[in-house]
Amino acid sequence: MEIGFLGLGIMGKAMAMNLLKHGFKVTVWNRTLSKCDELVEHGASMGETPAQVIKKCKYTIAMLSDPCAALSVVFDKDGVLEQICEGKGYIDMSTVDAETSLKINQAITGKGGRFVEGPVSGSKKPAEDGQLIILAAGDKSLFDETVPAFDVLGKKSFYLGQVGNGAKMKLVVNMVMGSMMNAFSEGLVLADKSGLSSDTLLDILDLGAMTNPMFKGKGPSMNKSSYPPAFPLKHQQKDMRLALALGDENAVSMPVAAAANEAFKKARSMGLGDLDFSAVIEAVKFSRE
Amino acid sequence: MEIGFLGLGIMGKAMAMNLLKHGFKVTVWNRTLSKCDELVEHGASMGETPAQVIKKCKYTIAMLSDPCAALSVVFDKDGVLEQICEGKGYIDMSTVDAETSLKINQAITGKGGRFVEGPVSGSKKPAEDGQLIILAAGDKSLFDETVPAFDVLGKKSFYLGQVGNGAKMKLVVNMVMGSMMNAFSEGLVLADKSGLSSDTLLDILDLGAMTNPMFKGKGPSMNKSSYPPAFPLKHQQKDMRLALALGDENAVSMPVAAAANEAFKKARSMGLGDLDFSAVIEAVKFSRE
Amino acid sequence: MEIGFLGLGIMGKAMAMNLLKHGFKVTVWNRTLSKCDELVEHGASMGETPAQVIKKCKYTIAMLSDPCAALSVVFDKDGVLEQICEGKGYIDMSTVDAETSLKINQAITGKGGRFVEGPVSGSKKPAEDGQLIILAAGDKSLFDETVPAFDVLGKKSFYLGQVGNGAKMKLVVNMVMGSMMNAFSEGLVLADKSGLSSDTLLDILDLGAMTNPMFKGKGPSMNKSSYPPAFPLKHQQKDMRLALALGDENAVSMPVAAAANEAFKKARSMGLGDLDFSAVIEAVKFSRE
Amino acid sequence: MEIGFLGLGIMGKAMAMNLLKHGFKVTVWNRTLSKCDELVEHGASMGETPAQVIKKCKYTIAMLSDPCAALSVVFDKDGVLEQICEGKGYIDMSTVDAETSLKINQAITGKGGRFVEGPVSGSKKPAEDGQLIILAAGDKSLFDETVPAFDVLGKKSFYLGQVGNGAKMKLVVNMVMGSMMNAFSEGLVLADKSGLSSDTLLDILDLGAMTNPMFKGKGPSMNKSSYPPAFPLKHQQKDMRLALALGDENAVSMPVAAAANEAFKKARSMGLGDLDFSAVIEAVKFSRE
Repeated sequence: MEIGFLGLGIMGKAMAMNLLKHGFKVTVWNRTLSKCDELVEHGASMGETPAQVIKKCKYTIAMLSDPCAALSVVFDKDGVLEQICEGKGYIDMSTVDAETSLKINQAITGKGGRFVEGPVSGSKKPAEDGQLIILAAGDKSLFDETVPAFDVLGKKSFYLGQVGNGAKMKLVVNMVMGSMMNAFSEGLVLADKSGLSSDTLLDILDLGAMTNPMFKGKGPSMNKSSYPPAFPLKHQQKDMRLALALGDENAVSMPVAAAANEAFKKARSMGLGDLDFSAVIEAVKFSRE
Repeated sequence: MEIGFLGLGIMGKAMAMNLLKHGFKVTVWNRTLSKCDELVEHGASMGETPAQVIKKCKYTIAMLSDPCAALSVVFDKDGVLEQICEGKGYIDMSTVDAETSLKINQAITGKGGRFVEGPVSGSKKPAEDGQLIILAAGDKSLFDETVPAFDVLGKKSFYLGQVGNGAKMKLVVNMVMGSMMNAFSEGLVLADKSGLSSDTLLDILDLGAMTNPMFKGKGPSMNKSSYPPAFPLKHQQKDMRLALALGDENAVSMPVAAAANEAFKKARSMGLGDLDFSAVIEAVKFSRE
Repeated sequence: MEIGFLGLGIMGKAMAMNLLKHGFKVTVWNRTLSKCDELVEHGASMGETPAQVIKKCKYTIAMLSDPCAALSVVFDKDGVLEQICEGKGYIDMSTVDAETSLKINQAITGKGGRFVEGPVSGSKKPAEDGQLIILAAGDKSLFDETVPAFDVLGKKSFYLGQVGNGAKMKLVVNMVMGSMMNAFSEGLVLADKSGLSSDTLLDILDLGAMTNPMFKGKGPSMNKSSYPPAFPLKHQQKDMRLALALGDENAVSMPVAAAANEAFKKARSMGLGDLDFSAVIEAVKFSRE
Repeated sequence: MEIGFLGLGIMGKAMAMNLLKHGFKVTVWNRTLSKCDELVEHGASMGETPAQVIKKCKYTIAMLSDPCAALSVVFDKDGVLEQICEGKGYIDMSTVDAETSLKINQAITGKGGRFVEGPVSGSKKPAEDGQLIILAAGDKSLFDETVPAFDVLGKKSFYLGQVGNGAKMKLVVNMVMGSMMNAFSEGLVLADKSGLSSDTLLDILDLGAMTNPMFKGKGPSMNKSSYPPAFPLKHQQKDMRLALALGDENAVSMPVAAAANEAFKKARSMGLGDLDFSAVIEAVKFSRE
């Protein structure tokens, strides 16, 4: 199976490499072309522009850094739109909002192409290990044909219906995550200020029905006030805000998420936006006594 | 090792049975004495009153239904206080507030006895399987001597320092649990009202860093609006309230727990107090459109 | 002084009439031209299009129903832009978001015209009585020249600096109002459910430091579950959302406004969006017992 | 009319003086008896003990600093209970919780006496000016007989039914006040951080439907970060907590009050408990950027 791949950042590079390793023929492109070299050494071809890649491949996957880059690769000169046509499929796995996805979908399908959005849950390590979770939505036939690639990139791919649903599902998941992180932070601080050991609290939580990899992974460093950024707080807060906006659209009242969002905003105002989102515990901790 | 055991409710009976099975000599007492029969058939002795049990055994464990019963067994006629004395140890594993624990501690130590509070995390099944988590606090030497019994009753026992800390730690754990349950509920409802499948959300959460037995265990029945009471909502709400009061004492601001508590209160006002605490999702779901 | 006036809805008609009564020469326009008749009977001239009005008058005030209408009057065929030029001033008193205001400002000033946004606080009655509060921002010289008109339309006009500040200030005011309404609602329900008279609470509040026309005006009907829409709940909730977004931009954490916003959303989900915003008390009241 | 008066603190002294000025015969007592001198110069008699005052007077009013003092004056040696009897009335105007009130009521009525609780809204200045608001509850006949005194002490007295209702109503009023103060604080900070003038916001609020003496009185000093304690923040927070507890008892969900309470707790943790409750704005303001 031949696949085009646009965008070789941390995630994209690991994903394209996995496709190569599993016998896919891959044609790569990146804005800074030199980033293609390593992939080429492992057997990839290279395209000079997104349009060239689309022209060459029946299926093209994109993994770009943000909505702006995702739009630019499609709409700019030498972009995807110039070559997309009936018979071709475009799968955008970048994390973008539903609106951006819908805009790209409209343009692609307007030219007769097929479109699937497929944002992922998971970061660098799962990308390297082919253990991403893929939240796909859009053209069902394209999804079905792309499953072999998804099987290499992720441990599980979900088909969620119409375009926009992938983006929405990701917001829901991240909202639950942000609220849980606040619940956890409040617990750790309450233990500590009540004369209990917050390290012991970690042990107790780990033995009970709430045990989960996130508490286990982040708890010990939170107790040491260390927040190396895996998922930056400002991005978590943005996702909380967008999830609340989704709730607003659908008249869902979510007081706990709203309180969590305000805590993330407080943390941002304390200059913690670029740290890991677990740094929200600093907003809970803060006092002057 | 000889152990007295006061209180043979659902939890106490399972615990006493485990002690018997592991070779402890157990003398049991229960307010309704006939409840002792089954234990006696398995080799237990029986005491006519709490005082008799204390007189006979160097160590006595109590597992009573509430603070009121815990106090009554100690302070009433024929109660623990009549026979407790130097050399004897009393371990109360009932779930009571810190104040009740402190009152019992004062009375026991006033007579020269030693006291440990040891509330547990876990309900019927873990009690039967000897898989409880024991949050012990109080007399360290008594704790150390009681470890062999704790090893039979639970998968892990923690020594948390002064009397009251066991009760407090349990509140912290339950507070995290209550907030998490709200985060989960808001996510399920948001998914559903946004045109996504809340069953698929369960699958996605289960594959990621937030996966935990509670979401896994309760999610499917919550999606079916079924809430068989494992831990009644009104008790969860009471623990949230007490945890917030603990935060108040120690000047810890916990906006997410406070929002979760109000959601539990709303659920109570909807007549859901006797259902499982996962029924809080009904307060999130409620609408008229 | 000659003034053009675009938009003769409930507010606009009352405002244009006040200008006439105070001796201004007024040229009116309305999308449905027949609505101009009453004003013409009182001495106004009529323009066939917004462009005609702008051509004729040095100063033109607009009072339109929403951002969409405000944009259309400026940018559409026969719109303001076709005639605006150096020496002319355009004052938009419609309630629009900062973004819409900025877009209009850019277009007007691009043609050499001057622009002031001037959203008002107050509805039908204050408009008729010339008792509006005017939150103006933009071109200072135009503001200064327009003061005689503002003095007729309102009891007070504020100059708030750059374009966008009028819209922002209105959001801040409405946010305080929405939170206060929630505080008031919770108090009334708490009184009632605690066996106290919520009517007596009104009397007590009225005698103390919190007494204000809003509690006085809306309290008695809220106690009767009557919510004739003066300011629809869905608009209040939209303003809360936008105020929270403004806080998000500027990293201001506002947990009370966030909680109030979720209560308004709950009320919307209960089908109360078209009633007065005081109907949020129904979300507080709701219970099944 | 002859009236006993127990407690000559800031409030009590002003109140007793007002009674004297309006022709009442007043017998005063204070723990530090020298504080009675000034009253005696103005014509008051003095009692050596609370019991003496009760013995001498048919009606006795108490105005004590806290629940502890209120209980002590009744139950201690030489206290009210020693002389209270059928035909006598005791009116406690101290600010105490409902439980304390009920305890005093039971003791007084157990001896055949009549009891009214009458906490007040208003502080030093209104006490001096006879402009307090009196929230009375308990024995209706005693209330009716005491009206002439209430008319001198306050601008209005309310009869609220059974003992405890006075205390509860005061909590409801203070809860509304605490939430309003948070709404106001968030508005002032949002204005400031959004590039608007928070002083102008005060002017705008003052002209609209939300205008109230509290915003007017405290706003200007809040904008100068000055918080001279009229009502200490820690007492406001305690009242919020008790009001939330009252809501808990009656299953009233109050998310806005809960969020406000957490803000007051944050302010306490910042060491602001002894400042005026308007200092809660510091918790909203706090940031590191």
